[in-house]
Amino acid sequence: MRSLIRDLLLSTATAESIHAAGWVRTRRDSKGFSFLELNDGSCMGNLQVIADAGIPGSEDLAKMSTGASVSVEGKLVASQGGGQAWEVQATSIRLLGEAPDDFPLQKKGHSPEFLRSIAHLRPRTNLYGAMFRVRSRMSHAVHRFFAERHFHYIHTPIITASDCEGAGEMFRVTTLDPVAGKAKSYAEDFFGKAAHLTVSGQLEGELFACALGNIYTFGPTFRAENSNTSRHAAEFWMIEPEMAFCDLQGDMDLAESMVKYLVKEALDGQDGDLSIFEKFVDKGLRERLEFVADNPFERVSYTEAVEILKKSGKSFEYPVEYGLNLQSEHERWLTEEHFKKPTTVFNYPKEIKPFYMRLNDDDKTVTAMDLLVPGIGEIVGGSQREERLDVLIENMERHGLSMEDYAWYVDTRKYGTVPHAGFGMGFERMLMFVTGMQNIRDVIPFARTPGHCEF
Amino acid sequence: MRSLIRDLLLSTATAESIHAAGWVRTRRDSKGFSFLELNDGSCMGNLQVIADAGIPGSEDLAKMSTGASVSVEGKLVASQGGGQAWEVQATSIRLLGEAPDDFPLQKKGHSPEFLRSIAHLRPRTNLYGAMFRVRSRMSHAVHRFFAERHFHYIHTPIITASDCEGAGEMFRVTTLDPVAGKAKSYAEDFFGKAAHLTVSGQLEGELFACALGNIYTFGPTFRAENSNTSRHAAEFWMIEPEMAFCDLQGDMDLAESMVKYLVKEALDGQDGDLSIFEKFVDKGLRERLEFVADNPFERVSYTEAVEILKKSGKSFEYPVEYGLNLQSEHERWLTEEHFKKPTTVFNYPKEIKPFYMRLNDDDKTVTAMDLLVPGIGEIVGGSQREERLDVLIENMERHGLSMEDYAWYVDTRKYGTVPHAGFGMGFERMLMFVTGMQNIRDVIPFARTPGHCEF
Repeated sequence: MRSLIRDLLLSTATAESIHAAGWVRTRRDSKGFSFLELNDGSCMGNLQVIADAGIPGSEDLAKMSTGASVSVEGKLVASQGGGQAWEVQATSIRLLGEAPDDFPLQKKGHSPEFLRSIAHLRPRTNLYGAMFRVRSRMSHAVHRFFAERHFHYIHTPIITASDCEGAGEMFRVTTLDPVAGKAKSYAEDFFGKAAHLTVSGQLEGELFACALGNIYTFGPTFRAENSNTSRHAAEFWMIEPEMAFCDLQGDMDLAESMVKYLVKEALDGQDGDLSIFEKFVDKGLRERLEFVADNPFERVSYTEAVEILKKSGKSFEYPVEYGLNLQSEHERWLTEEHFKKPTTVFNYPKEIKPFYMRLNDDDKTVTAMDLLVPGIGEIVGGSQREERLDVLIENMERHGLSMEDYAWYVDTRKYGTVPHAGFGMGFERMLMFVTGMQNIRDVIPFARTPGHCEF
Repeated sequence: MRSLIRDLLLSTATAESIHAAGWVRTRRDSKGFSFLELNDGSCMGNLQVIADAGIPGSEDLAKMSTGASVSVEGKLVASQGGGQAWEVQATSIRLLGEAPDDFPLQKKGHSPEFLRSIAHLRPRTNLYGAMFRVRSRMSHAVHRFFAERHFHYIHTPIITASDCEGAGEMFRVTTLDPVAGKAKSYAEDFFGKAAHLTVSGQLEGELFACALGNIYTFGPTFRAENSNTSRHAAEFWMIEPEMAFCDLQGDMDLAESMVKYLVKEALDGQDGDLSIFEKFVDKGLRERLEFVADNPFERVSYTEAVEILKKSGKSFEYPVEYGLNLQSEHERWLTEEHFKKPTTVFNYPKEIKPFYMRLNDDDKTVTAMDLLVPGIGEIVGGSQREERLDVLIENMERHGLSMEDYAWYVDTRKYGTVPHAGFGMGFERMLMFVTGMQNIRDVIPFARTPGHCEF
C-alpha cells in the first residue's frame, strides 16, 4: 500500500517498512549511494530517499533523472541531514518511467508564458503544483463555508436560453454547423431554439432561494468577450449564494464573512503551499492576508465614494462623476490608497445597474454592492433583488426584457414573494488575491481565452 | 436575526423570542386563532405557528393562504398537539407576499410531467424540496469523500477542442451564427478552431494525476445525443477520480468505497428527506440502501459474466456473445437477479473499449471495469489507463487519433510515465439510485433534453 508523501512527512514515528512513489525532482550521486528527492504531488515537500548501490533496482539509478517516475520500498528513519525530519533508507527501488533529456522541466526558472504552453506539465513544478493544490483546498473551503451555514448547493444549468446580464457576449451552443452551411432557423437546432452558455446562475439561483431559503451555486460560467487581458478568461468559475428573507445588509455581511473565511483558509493551509507564493510571487502576501483576516472591512455608499474620489486631488484616467461607473483605477485607489482595507461600495445609481436590483426609497439608487480588495479591485458583486412585482415589471419593461421569456422569473414575485439578496464571487479573482498571481491564465488548469483552446 | 426552521425543530429548550419566516403550506382557522404550517426550505419539516386573532399583523391572516410568504415573531414552546415537539406562539405576524388563487401548488398530487413544466416552483413541494436538498447533501459528501483521502479537486475545462470518447456526439461552442450565414472556416471562430462542450474531463484529469497524484473532477458534462429516455440528459454532472500509481484493483476498490460512502450518506441524512422517497417513490428504498451499505460487492470478469448470462436460460432482447457489449438488460439481470448485489464486471474485450484502456497480458482484454447496481445498471465506468508509450501509440493509430492533436496526452507517457487508473460516476444516476426516482429529469434542477431548454 503506497503512502502519500504528505503523510510520511507528517509522521510521528519511524516505520520499518513503507512504500512510496513519485517523480524525481533531483538526484545526487555519492560514492556507493544516491540521494533522490521524490515528489508525488500530495504536498509541496519532497521525500528524501537514500539508495545504496547494490539494492534491488539500483542498476537503474542512472536513469532516475529529473522527471523520471520511481517506486521505492524502505525504512522511514530520522533524517541525518538538515532540511527534513524524515528520510527513507531504501531497501529496493524501481524505475517506473524514464524522462528523456528533452523533458522540458529539467531546469528551474521558466517564464510563465513558456509554462502556459506546456500547461499539461506545469503542475509538476513546485509553483504550479502549489497553485492547483491551493485551488483545490479553496474549493473545498467554499463548500464547507456554505455547508456549515446550511446553504443548499444547487447545480444551475450551464446551457441556457436566457441571458442574466442582458450583456449579449455569450457563446452559442448548437448542433448546427456554421461552416458546413446556413441553417433556416434555430427551430432546427438541438433545443428547438437558440441556446447559449450561461454567464451567471443567478436567476435560476433566485428560483431555488425562493423555495429552499439559502442556496449557492459554484460552477463554470462563460463570457465570449474578445479581450486579451490578464484578468479575463472565456471560462471561469463563479460562486453565487442567494438568500431568501435577506436584505442588502445581510448580503454584505455574508460577502465579508466569506472573504475572511477563504483568506483564513489560505493562511491555515498545512502543506506549506502559501510559502512558495510568498517567496517567489509576492513578498508581502502573508502580511496582506493576515490584515484582511483580522480587520473589519469598510462600507461606503457610492455617493460618498464619488465625493471622496473627487476630493482626492488624484488625476485618474477616467472621469469621476455621479452617474458614471467606477473604473478599476477608482476602485483600487479607494481600497488600496484611501481606506487601505477591503471596502464595500453600496447603493449605486439605478441607471448603471441591471433590472433585477431593488430600487431604494430615494427612487434614484439600487441596492447594488461591490466588495473591493487591495491588489484586485472588485472580488464580489451583488445586490438585494427587486421583490415587488410591479416595480420589477416596470424595470423589465424599461430594460426591454420580454415578459414571456422571463415569466418563470416573474412568478417568484407573483406567488409568495420574499425579500432576497445574493452575490457573485469570481473564484479565480479570489485565487489571484490569496496567491498574488498576476495572470488569470496561471490560476486555471487549462485557460480558455480568445484563440486559445488547447489540451 | 431569522432562525432556520431546521434549527428550531432541533431545539433543546424553549425560547422567549424567535424570528422565523417561510411559505405557508397550510392554514387552519379556529375560533379566535389560526394554525399555520410554515416551511422555509431548510428542511422537510414545517414549523407550526399559532397566531391569535388580535396580534399585530393578524388582520392579514385571511391572505396567508398556501404559497404565501410570512414572517413571524414569537415564543418557541413545547407543542400541545402531536406530530411535532415544538411550536411557535406568535406575538406578531407579517404577510410578506400573497399567493393568488392561481398558485399552481394549492393541492397535492400533481403529475411529475406537470411539475417539470413548472420546474421553477416544484422545489416548493415536499418531494422536490427533499430531492434538491438530497442532491446538495450528496454533492457535499462527494467532496468530503475525496478531501478525507487527500484527493485534489481539479476544474478541468468545459470548452474543449478534443473528444475523450471519440464519440462525436458533442455540442459545438461558437460565436459564429449558423442561421445568419455560412462561415468560411473555424479559423474565424472565437478560439480560432472548432470547439465543443466536454463529454468527460478524464484526459485532462490524467494530466493532473500524473503531477499531483490523486485528483478528481466534479462538474458538468454534455452529450448531444438525440435520445428521449428517462436515463439521458444533454447536461449532467460527472465525478471523475484519477489516481497515479494505481491499478485496476485499486480503481475497483475506490469505486466500491465511494458507492458505499454515498449510500451511507443518504441513509444518515438527519433532516428526514429520505423518508418521503420511501413513502411516495419506493417502499423498499431504505432496505435496499442498507443492504448495499452493509454487504461486500461482487466482482466478475467479463468472460465469466458472458458465460453466466449464456447459461442463464433467460431470453434477452439483445444477444449475449463474447465480443459484444453488455446491454442494460444483461447488466441489470446480473446485479438484480443473479448476484443480487452490486457487481463490478472487469476485463472487457479490447475491441469494444476506447483507446486509453490498458491492454492485459492476454493481449485480448483491457482493464475496463463497470460497477452495476440493482435498479440502475451501470453507475461507474472506469479503467486502468495504458501507461506504456509504445502500446498507447499503437492504440491511437488503430483508433485513427491524430498524434498531433493529442501530443500533450502522449507526453505523460513519454516523461516519467506511471501506472494510473480512474473512473467516472454519473452523479444523476447515483441520485436516482439513492432516491428511487425513475426519471433523470426529476433529479436535475432544470433538465436539458432534446427540444427542452427552459428556465
